[in-house]
Amino acid sequence: MEEKGISQAVISRLPRYFRYLGELKDEGVERISSQELSEIMKVTASQIRQDFNNFGGFGQQGYGYNVEYLYTEIGKILGLDKKHHLVLIGAGNLGQAIANYMNFERRGFLISGIFDVNAALIGKKVRDIEVRPMEELEDFIREHDIDIGVLTIPKNAAVDVANRLVKCGIKAMWNFAHVDLNVPEDVLVENVHLSDSLMKLSYNINRYETSKE
Amino acid sequence: MEEKGISQAVISRLPRYFRYLGELKDEGVERISSQELSEIMKVTASQIRQDFNNFGGFGQQGYGYNVEYLYTEIGKILGLDKKHHLVLIGAGNLGQAIANYMNFERRGFLISGIFDVNAALIGKKVRDIEVRPMEELEDFIREHDIDIGVLTIPKNAAVDVANRLVKCGIKAMWNFAHVDLNVPEDVLVENVHLSDSLMKLSYNINRYETSKE
Repeated sequence: MEEKGISQAVISRLPRYFRYLGELKDEGVERISSQELSEIMKVTASQIRQDFNNFGGFGQQGYGYNVEYLYTEIGKILGLDKKHHLVLIGAGNLGQAIANYMNFERRGFLISGIFDVNAALIGKKVRDIEVRPMEELEDFIREHDIDIGVLTIPKNAAVDVANRLVKCGIKAMWNFAHVDLNVPEDVLVENVHLSDSLMKLSYNINRYETSKE
Repeated sequence: MEEKGISQAVISRLPRYFRYLGELKDEGVERISSQELSEIMKVTASQIRQDFNNFGGFGQQGYGYNVEYLYTEIGKILGLDKKHHLVLIGAGNLGQAIANYMNFERRGFLISGIFDVNAALIGKKVRDIEVRPMEELEDFIREHDIDIGVLTIPKNAAVDVANRLVKCGIKAMWNFAHVDLNVPEDVLVENVHLSDSLMKLSYNINRYETSKE
């Protein structure tokens, strides 16, 4: 697998390919050409071929790609053939929404533990997973095979919690707090800054309205 | 304001500048050089200057940018000086998380109505906003000055709901459903595909582990 020096732009597009291929597979489609894929995904066929060439091209023949094969291979590149064990920190609405989303589990992301500072939530269950107090975080991580920390907490708490996770050896965080975490270089952070996304929409609305004036 | 042909990459970075400048402002910082901003934001000073030059440069002098002025101007570019009225469709955990997030309101994004298909949720209140049945959607949009639809519903329902919003004249959608909406070209869609984000993290974990072997 030739994966050296692949740009984050290409990587950002992989989940979308995976999503579309999953849908095609569910619909029983066996083969698809880059042209057909291009039409449903609204990207150019040349972009698709270029992206796939980063990974050896997935053996496209004259008659197109094998959907099942392509789906499986992209899944492997995304690491979805491996199980990940997550702790979720913050059992509020957002944390519960994530815990309840079954599709993450289907993709191999298993929530092992849920933690919160709020005494009223401790002991409650979210999808059969008991909410635990923050004091148990370190022991829980040591006793379970946790590799991802999910932060669904306010930004004031996030920096401290991220530091605690780093000390426990957690190497990957999925961060929903509206703050950029200051973690060592070997810790991976994927941010979901919802405010940033909404502001981007707002920018585009503003541009659109200005252009009409 | 010279805003012609600004790339989406630059636009994607604006909310992050806005966020950092807001924090600096709250801390009472009055002036900052591109070098100092570069250090706290971990981007190059040259990148910052290039980004800002798209908007006329914001009058940096030898002694740096005026934080308050820069914050206000970037806010205006992002359209945050205007109020937006939202309808939220889907009053589940994710919808409630968004409705409860006060910061969106501070930025001028006001949730006017919340809708759900689930009879058990109708009439319940999320932050003093009553959850309404989907049948009332069109009338509500017509009677209120709604400009953004927020979709926090499963993907099977999202396509149909997006079409209903388009028919009501909604020109902007913030989409959390795991599907790309097929809307007319003049309708703006900002997607938050949480699965895609998690898969990107998974890819990077996988790369990291492979590189250690």
